[in-house]
Amino acid sequence: MEFSDRQKLIIEIVKAHEPITGDNIAAKLNLTKPTLRNDLSLLTMTGVLDARPKVGYIYSGQTIEPLLFEKLYTKKVDDIMIPAVFIKQDTSLKNAITDLFMYDVGSLYVVNKDKKLVGILSRKDLLRSVLANNEDDIPVAVVMSRMPNVITITPEETILTAGNTLMQHQVDSLPVVEKGTNDKIIGKITKTRIMNHFIEEGIKVKAQ
Amino acid sequence: MEFSDRQKLIIEIVKAHEPITGDNIAAKLNLTKPTLRNDLSLLTMTGVLDARPKVGYIYSGQTIEPLLFEKLYTKKVDDIMIPAVFIKQDTSLKNAITDLFMYDVGSLYVVNKDKKLVGILSRKDLLRSVLANNEDDIPVAVVMSRMPNVITITPEETILTAGNTLMQHQVDSLPVVEKGTNDKIIGKITKTRIMNHFIEEGIKVKAQ
Repeated sequence: MEFSDRQKLIIEIVKAHEPITGDNIAAKLNLTKPTLRNDLSLLTMTGVLDARPKVGYIYSGQTIEPLLFEKLYTKKVDDIMIPAVFIKQDTSLKNAITDLFMYDVGSLYVVNKDKKLVGILSRKDLLRSVLANNEDDIPVAVVMSRMPNVITITPEETILTAGNTLMQHQVDSLPVVEKGTNDKIIGKITKTRIMNHFIEEGIKVKAQ
Repeated sequence: MEFSDRQKLIIEIVKAHEPITGDNIAAKLNLTKPTLRNDLSLLTMTGVLDARPKVGYIYSGQTIEPLLFEKLYTKKVDDIMIPAVFIKQDTSLKNAITDLFMYDVGSLYVVNKDKKLVGILSRKDLLRSVLANNEDDIPVAVVMSRMPNVITITPEETILTAGNTLMQHQVDSLPVVEKGTNDKIIGKITKTRIMNHFIEEGIKVKAQ
């Protein structure tokens, strides 16, 4: 459902002048009250306006829900991506684990000398390596998930696509790479970031 | 805006029997058509139903946006929680890491002999322990996050509350415990589960 321009105008008028009678709203719009009947009735029935007998219309402060889907899902990866933490291929396992704690992240992006993405190191990769009794001074290049087996995404994609990709591939993090490349990293998107996005928007709607 | 139970019922009836006249909808609800007038007019004005002259009401297939917030946020933890994986306090670190991979989970719930929750072991806890050079045969009780420092949630809480709790406490997983207890585990809720819930619902809406 989408409100018409006139309905949006009525909402603005009520917000500015509440309580205001239907006659006064009509006067401000240079229209007659019967012309507005359908609009006022829709706005009241949807709960956006409250009609108080002998007082007038009051803005209920309720959300205009139709925008919710857009805010949640069709926003771009670009709008919510976060910075990535990089390490070199010859970083030791032990230093990589230390970095995970230092930067409080779930994954590290491994880059070569040209700062191009060559692999990802997740908590799971590190634990797998511990289980394999690897010495803690071996380089991360030995245990990382290596390109081209790393799933990436571009900043133009929607949050819905990013979330679906994380879900389908069962990974915790996606490097965001420049469109047309698959190794020029400009950020990252994670399950945590996406969940936080949904929760933050939900809290905003609820507070309205 | 929130549809009433009767309005939701009308939507379901129209979905199942479209096209259907107002009289027939009223008959199915054992109500008179005048009683339904306001509901039908609201559902038509909001675009959820289409009223076709001489045909009847048709479900427009339009997203019922007002329901989106409910589906996403006010559903209960109970509706989306998943089973937890349990280990005993004397399980060795090495066996715990193995269990993480065997069950492909991000955290293990540590229980005592009475199956009461005594702690949680996350990937992060295990990596921290590796960094501390702990022997891999020490019991998990040494390194787990211990009650009462474990954040729990009850199944009656909403998804919004669960997500907000995960976000505020920066944890990956919340044990779902029976209301009135803080150690009788009936499931778990994780960031992954919540993100998947939002993405699955988003895909459904988009497919409509």
